[in-house]
Amino acid sequence: MSITEKYSGVELTTAGNVYFDGKCVSHDFVTADGVHKSVGVVLPAKLTFGTSKPEVMECVAGGCRYLLKGASEWKTCSPGEMFSIPENSGFDIEVADEPFHYICHYG
Amino acid sequence: MSITEKYSGVELTTAGNVYFDGKCVSHDFVTADGVHKSVGVVLPAKLTFGTSKPEVMECVAGGCRYLLKGASEWKTCSPGEMFSIPENSGFDIEVADEPFHYICHYG
Repeated sequence: MSITEKYSGVELTTAGNVYFDGKCVSHDFVTADGVHKSVGVVLPAKLTFGTSKPEVMECVAGGCRYLLKGASEWKTCSPGEMFSIPENSGFDIEVADEPFHYICHYG
Repeated sequence: MSITEKYSGVELTTAGNVYFDGKCVSHDFVTADGVHKSVGVVLPAKLTFGTSKPEVMECVAGGCRYLLKGASEWKTCSPGEMFSIPENSGFDIEVADEPFHYICHYG
């Protein structure tokens, strides 16, 4: 599994997004071909995220366990792996020791 | 004071940097003209950073108080403002309520 380590030619928003009192911090960017994404870090915690649009969470470092809304089985996500969340849905995420570094793909 | 809200044409590193158990999270990028910078967030905390190279911390949202190494007076830094730290030095930073969103300029 290859890890997406860098994006070139992006427009980066300098102010970050802070969720759950900082347990998750991310920065938005727009790719060279105009697609909105974000890079972020989830610190050790157990959180629940909601989605309005479909999202794909791609792990670039660290790892997590996640439980998609309505699912009954927790799964793991390691560097190079990703998981999809439908629109108007959500997921629980559990980060244990090492923070979960991710790219969020929207739409 | 104008705020640097976006950078275009940058190369963004997807994995973040996590300092002080997540009290500070940042992402590195290289500008279109090849200069290394980072964008980051300092959560409410009192931290001490060291510098090897000279740095300029530019506030893009939130704010902080800072005390340069060897200085006797705390100063404030608000959106659009910045402060310089010499090489091989450091600074104390105190973030109260709203996280401090910054760009770090190196060298």
